[in-house]
Amino acid sequence: MKPDWGIRGRLGNPVIGIIGSGDFSRSLAIRLVASGFSVVVGSRNPKRIPKGLFPDGVELRSQREAVDSAERVIFAAIYPEHYSTLVGLRDGLAGKVLVDVSNATRLDDGELSNAEQLAELFPQSRVVKGFNVISAWALQTGAHDGSRQVLICSDCSDSKATVVQLTRRLGFSPVDLGGLVASRDIEKAPLHLFPSWEGATLVTFLLFLFFYGYNVVKHVLLPYLAHGEHNFYQLPLETVNQTLPAVALILLGLVYLPGLVAAVLQLARGTKYKRFPSWLDRWMCRRKELGLMSFLCAGVHAVYSMCLTLRRAAGYRLLNAAYRQVIGAGVENSWEEQQVWRSDLYLSCGILGLGVLTLLALTSLPSVGNALNWREFTFMQSGLGYAALTLSIMHTLFFGWDFAFFPEAYRYYLPPVYLLALILPCVVLVGRVLLALPCLALRLAKIRRGWESSRHRPSHSQGQEITNLPLLCL
Amino acid sequence: MKPDWGIRGRLGNPVIGIIGSGDFSRSLAIRLVASGFSVVVGSRNPKRIPKGLFPDGVELRSQREAVDSAERVIFAAIYPEHYSTLVGLRDGLAGKVLVDVSNATRLDDGELSNAEQLAELFPQSRVVKGFNVISAWALQTGAHDGSRQVLICSDCSDSKATVVQLTRRLGFSPVDLGGLVASRDIEKAPLHLFPSWEGATLVTFLLFLFFYGYNVVKHVLLPYLAHGEHNFYQLPLETVNQTLPAVALILLGLVYLPGLVAAVLQLARGTKYKRFPSWLDRWMCRRKELGLMSFLCAGVHAVYSMCLTLRRAAGYRLLNAAYRQVIGAGVENSWEEQQVWRSDLYLSCGILGLGVLTLLALTSLPSVGNALNWREFTFMQSGLGYAALTLSIMHTLFFGWDFAFFPEAYRYYLPPVYLLALILPCVVLVGRVLLALPCLALRLAKIRRGWESSRHRPSHSQGQEITNLPLLCL
Amino acid sequence: MKPDWGIRGRLGNPVIGIIGSGDFSRSLAIRLVASGFSVVVGSRNPKRIPKGLFPDGVELRSQREAVDSAERVIFAAIYPEHYSTLVGLRDGLAGKVLVDVSNATRLDDGELSNAEQLAELFPQSRVVKGFNVISAWALQTGAHDGSRQVLICSDCSDSKATVVQLTRRLGFSPVDLGGLVASRDIEKAPLHLFPSWEGATLVTFLLFLFFYGYNVVKHVLLPYLAHGEHNFYQLPLETVNQTLPAVALILLGLVYLPGLVAAVLQLARGTKYKRFPSWLDRWMCRRKELGLMSFLCAGVHAVYSMCLTLRRAAGYRLLNAAYRQVIGAGVENSWEEQQVWRSDLYLSCGILGLGVLTLLALTSLPSVGNALNWREFTFMQSGLGYAALTLSIMHTLFFGWDFAFFPEAYRYYLPPVYLLALILPCVVLVGRVLLALPCLALRLAKIRRGWESSRHRPSHSQGQEITNLPLLCL
Repeated sequence: MKPDWGIRGRLGNPVIGIIGSGDFSRSLAIRLVASGFSVVVGSRNPKRIPKGLFPDGVELRSQREAVDSAERVIFAAIYPEHYSTLVGLRDGLAGKVLVDVSNATRLDDGELSNAEQLAELFPQSRVVKGFNVISAWALQTGAHDGSRQVLICSDCSDSKATVVQLTRRLGFSPVDLGGLVASRDIEKAPLHLFPSWEGATLVTFLLFLFFYGYNVVKHVLLPYLAHGEHNFYQLPLETVNQTLPAVALILLGLVYLPGLVAAVLQLARGTKYKRFPSWLDRWMCRRKELGLMSFLCAGVHAVYSMCLTLRRAAGYRLLNAAYRQVIGAGVENSWEEQQVWRSDLYLSCGILGLGVLTLLALTSLPSVGNALNWREFTFMQSGLGYAALTLSIMHTLFFGWDFAFFPEAYRYYLPPVYLLALILPCVVLVGRVLLALPCLALRLAKIRRGWESSRHRPSHSQGQEITNLPLLCL
Repeated sequence: MKPDWGIRGRLGNPVIGIIGSGDFSRSLAIRLVASGFSVVVGSRNPKRIPKGLFPDGVELRSQREAVDSAERVIFAAIYPEHYSTLVGLRDGLAGKVLVDVSNATRLDDGELSNAEQLAELFPQSRVVKGFNVISAWALQTGAHDGSRQVLICSDCSDSKATVVQLTRRLGFSPVDLGGLVASRDIEKAPLHLFPSWEGATLVTFLLFLFFYGYNVVKHVLLPYLAHGEHNFYQLPLETVNQTLPAVALILLGLVYLPGLVAAVLQLARGTKYKRFPSWLDRWMCRRKELGLMSFLCAGVHAVYSMCLTLRRAAGYRLLNAAYRQVIGAGVENSWEEQQVWRSDLYLSCGILGLGVLTLLALTSLPSVGNALNWREFTFMQSGLGYAALTLSIMHTLFFGWDFAFFPEAYRYYLPPVYLLALILPCVVLVGRVLLALPCLALRLAKIRRGWESSRHRPSHSQGQEITNLPLLCL
Repeated sequence: MKPDWGIRGRLGNPVIGIIGSGDFSRSLAIRLVASGFSVVVGSRNPKRIPKGLFPDGVELRSQREAVDSAERVIFAAIYPEHYSTLVGLRDGLAGKVLVDVSNATRLDDGELSNAEQLAELFPQSRVVKGFNVISAWALQTGAHDGSRQVLICSDCSDSKATVVQLTRRLGFSPVDLGGLVASRDIEKAPLHLFPSWEGATLVTFLLFLFFYGYNVVKHVLLPYLAHGEHNFYQLPLETVNQTLPAVALILLGLVYLPGLVAAVLQLARGTKYKRFPSWLDRWMCRRKELGLMSFLCAGVHAVYSMCLTLRRAAGYRLLNAAYRQVIGAGVENSWEEQQVWRSDLYLSCGILGLGVLTLLALTSLPSVGNALNWREFTFMQSGLGYAALTLSIMHTLFFGWDFAFFPEAYRYYLPPVYLLALILPCVVLVGRVLLALPCLALRLAKIRRGWESSRHRPSHSQGQEITNLPLLCL
C-alpha cells in the first residue's frame, strides 16, 4: 500500500509539515529528511531562526504556508498551552493528519489529554497521537539498534495507518494502541520513573532497614549500653556488609516463592483455568526486578567482603593477634584445620553462587534474553536460579557452621542474622523439592497441559489448548 | 501491497481467527488486538472461559463460528494430538491460511512434523508454520527491542507472504525458511539447549577435569601417600584456583589457533578457493563461545584470588610467619625486593589481561557488537584478543618467575601446571608472530584478496571477488 | 506497493543477480535465498566453483547470463579495480539497478567514490550504493537482533526505493542518505576506528601520562635523588593505582562541566536560541565516552586496590609491623580508632560510588538505554551521575583525611595527587549547587522552555516550541 502522502516536494518526496521550530521540531526534521521526506517547518517568525539550525532540504516558512504546503501529515511541535494560537489555521488543517507529539506534565487522572483537546479544537482534522515517547536525541541519531517503540493512537484508522507507516519508514517500531482515548496513557508514559521497579525497590529498602537496625541493636547499641563496648566504628562498613547478604538471600527466596504458591494453588484447585489472585499475578510479574535487586545486594556484599582485608581494622587485628600469639600464648602454630575448611567452603559457595547469579542477570539484558529460545530461558531462570539459591544457602550455612548451636550466638536473646535470613529461602527450597516428588510433579504437569480434576471437568474436555507461557513454569 | 485480510471486523479491521483458548491463544489475541486486528477465538465451550481473560475486541465463539468469521487467517493454537478433533471444520477451513504454532516434543528425526500432519489432515487449507519460537510472554509484552525472529515456512508462497506481513505488523521479524518441510527443523528449534555452546562447554569441562586431577595428584594425593602431608583442605578453593587459570589460558589459545591453521592452509595451498576441512569450519564458528568460556574461567579465577586473603588459612600463615620472624629467625626486615617485583608484575599483567578480555566479552553482547563496523570488530577481536593472550602469558611467566629452573618444581617428576598450560598459548603467539613476517604476511594478504599461486591459476584470474568476511581475517 | 522485481524464478520468486563469487557474494546469496529470492551468480568461470559453496536455489552462470537473468537488481560484488572488466556487459545492465557494495580503501578526500565511478562506467544503469557496511558474517547469520543499519544512497529514487525494500525484506534497517554523492561517506564508514572515542581516549591518555609522571617524580625519582630511597618497585602497580583514581575523578568532572558551561551561557545570554560554540557542542556529544572512560579507570583502580593485600609487599609490611610491635615498641594493642573510621569511610564511599557508576555504565548499553523513557534517562544520567561524583569526591576526601594540613604531605613542595585531582570535580559540584539555587534554577527553566530576556525578545514570543532534548538538561 503506497500511502497517499500528497503532492511531492522538489525531489519528488512527500512533503511533511511541522509547526514549531524548537529542538523537537529540528530533530524531527533532521530525521525526516534523512529518511527521504521533504519538510516544511512553520514558524511564527521564520526569519529569526539562525541559518544552519535546520538541515538542507527543510524549508522555513510561516505557519500558514507550512500547513498549506503539507498535503497530508502535519506535526504539531509546540507546547499544548499554545494550541489555541493555531485556530486561525483551522481551514488549512481541515482533512489533514495532525500529529500530537506532546507529553503530559502531571500524572493526574480525569482530564482530557492534549491530543483530545487538539481534536476538539480541530474537529475537521484527523488527530493522531504519537512520537511523544521518542526523545529528540533518538530522532537525530536514529535509534541505532532500531528498538525504540512509538506508541500511536487515533480515532481515524486510515490516518493512523499513515502515521504507522511513516514511523516505520523513520526506523522506529510503531505500536497501535487503539482510539484517541489511549492518548491519556501515552502522554503520561514519559513521566513514569521505573514504574516496574517500585515494588522491588520498596521491599529491598524495608528489608535493608530491618536487618541494619537489627544488627545495630545487637552488635552496637546493646553492647554499648550493657558493657560500654565501643563498636560504633562498625556502622559504615561491617554492619552494612552483614546486612546486605541477608537482604540478598531473602530477595532471592522471594523470586521463587510466587512460583511455588502458584503451583500449590493449581494443585489444590485441580485446574489451571481459574485465575490467580491479583497480588500473585503482580508478584509473578516482578520476579525479574526482585532477582536483579538480589544480585545487586549480593554483588555489593562481594565487593565489600573483598575489601575487608584492605581495612585498617583488619591490619590492627592481625597485628594484635600476632602479638598475642608471640607474647601471650607463645603458640608457634595457630593453624585450625576446621576453620580453614569453613572459610574455604563458604567462600567457594559464595563465589559460585554469585557467578551463577551473574549469568542470570546477564539474561535479563534485553539483547541477550531475546536471543534465547524458551527452553534456554527456562533453563536459565529455573535451573540456574535454584542452583544460585542452593549455593547461597550453602554459603550461609557454611558461614554459620556450628556457631548457631552455642548460646553465645544468642547474646541478648537475639538470634544471629544469618539464621533469620535462612528461614524463607529454606522454605522455598524444601517446597521446590516436595513439588519435584513424582506424585505431585506428574499431577502438576497434567494440570498445566490442560487436564482438570473431576470436580471441574465439563461435559467435554477443555484440555487441548497450547500453553507455552514460560514464566508460569519457573 | 495491501494484503487481502478478508472481511472487516466491527472497526473495519481484518478479522483473525484463533482455535483454542489457552495461554498462547490469549497472548496472541492480546497482541493481535494491540496491533489493530479484530480477533475471534474459537473454543469448544466458550461459555466456560472467565470474563476478562481475553481483552476487549476479542469475540469468544464456538470453533465453527470462529472459523467462519475469519476470512483468511486462522491460528491453530491447540496441542497437535488434538488436531484430529478439527476434521469436522474441514469445509470451513478450506482455502484459508491455517497457521500451525506448535512445537515438537522430541528431537527424533524421520517423522512428519506437526505442520505436515496438519497439512495432510486439511489438504484444502494452506498450512503455514510459524510463531512457535515466540513465547506467550514475548507476544504479550511486545518484544520490546524488536529483535525476536519468527521462523516461517509454507508450501504456498502467497499464504506465506500474508503471514510474513502479519508477523511484521505484530512487531516481529519474519524469516522465510522455504517450504513446509522446513517445519521439521522449526518445530525443534525451541527444544535446543544452547546448541552452539556444546563444544566449548565440553572442552572446558575436560580441561578442568584434567588439570584439577593433575593438581590433586601432585599437591594432595602424592604428598599424602609419600610423606603423610594433609593438604586436603586445599581441595575446595586452592586447587580450583590453580586449575582455573590453566583452563582459561588454554581456551584463549584455542580461540586463536584455528585462525592460524586456516592461514597456514591457505599459504600451503596457495589459494583461498579450496574449502577448509569441516572440523576447521566448525572450530572457527565456535571461537566466540571458547573465548567467553575463557573469560568466565579467568573471571572466576580473579574473584577467587581476590578472596585469598580473606581465608582463615591466609591469616594463620601470616601469624605463623610473624611468629617465625620474631621468635625463630629474629629478622627485623623480611623484605625481598625480587619477590615484591614478581608479585606486582604478575598481578598487573593479570589485571590488565582480564580487563582486555572484559572489553572483548562486552563486544559479544549482541547490542554492542552490532554497533561496531567490521574494522572495529576486527580490531577488537584480533588486536585486543592477541593483547589479552600476550598479557595472560606474561601473567603466567611472571607468576612462574625462575621457579621452573629449580628441581623442587618437578616434585614427583610432575612439571608445574603453569608450564603445561603455557605450551599451547606460546605456540599460538609464536605462530602469529611468524605469520606477521613480511614475506608470509604479504603473500597471505594477496591470497585473501583472491590471488592464486600458479599451480591453481586458470586461464584467466578469479581474483576479483569481494571478500569481507571478518572472522576469517582474525 | 509490490515492487516490480522483474520475471519470476522457478519458485515464482524475484530473481536477483550477483556478479562475483567471493565470500561476500556467497553470504549475500545465502541471505537472499533465505529471504525468498531466487539468485543467479555470475562468475567468469562458473565451473571452477566447488559444489556446495553456494546454497541450493542459487544458479551459477557466466556473468553475461547472470546479468540477463536478473530483470531488475544486480549486485556488483567484485573489487572496484575490476569494474572496468564489466564494460562488455553494458547493454545487459542498461536500465537495471546496479548495487555497489564496495568499501573505500583509504580515508582520502576529493576523489570520486567507487559507486560514482561505477555510475560513470554504466551511465544507462541505475547505480545504488548500499550493503558495504554489512559484513558477510551478518549477512549469513541474519543480524539476530535486527539492529544492523544499511546505509543507502542513489541519484535514482525509484531504484533506491527498490533497494530499500529489498533491504527490509532481508531483515536489515535501510537508511536513506540521499544522492549518490553520499556514497563517498558511506564507503569510508567501515574504515573508521571508533571515531567517537578519539577525544575521550586522548584526554584519558594525557591525564594518565601527567599524573603518572607526577607520581613518579614525587614518590620515586626525587626520593631516590635526594635520599637514595629505592622505591622503583612501586612503578608497576602502586604508582598506577595512585594515578588511575585521579584520572577517573577528573574525567567524571569533565562529563558534567560542559552542562554547567551551557547553563551559564544560557543564563548569561538570556536565551536558548543562540547556538553554543562548536567546541561546547562537540564536548557535549562526547560525555558518554568520557563517562565510560572514567568508569574504566575507576573499575581498574578498584580491582588493583582489591589485589593490594595479595602483594608480597603487603605481607612483608605486615610482618615487619608485627616485628616492630612485638620487639620494638612492645605495644599490645595497635588499634587506632580514627584510622579505622577513615579507612572504612573511604572504602564505603568508593564502593558505593563505583556501584552507581556501574549502573550508569549499564544504561549506555544500547539495549538497556533504549528501554528507558527520557525521564528515566535523565534521572540516571543527571541524578545518579551527580551522586557518583559526590561519592567519588567524598571517597577522595576521606582518603585524604587531615593529611593535607601537615607539611609532610608537601614533600619537595609538591602537593599530593589527590588534592590536584579534587579541584575540577569540586568546582563542578559547587557550580551545580549554585545553579540549583531557586533564583538561577527558575530563570534557567524559563529560558529552556523558550522564554527570552527582554533584549532578545522580538515583536511576538517564540517561546512555544516543544523541547525535549534530554541531553541538554543534564
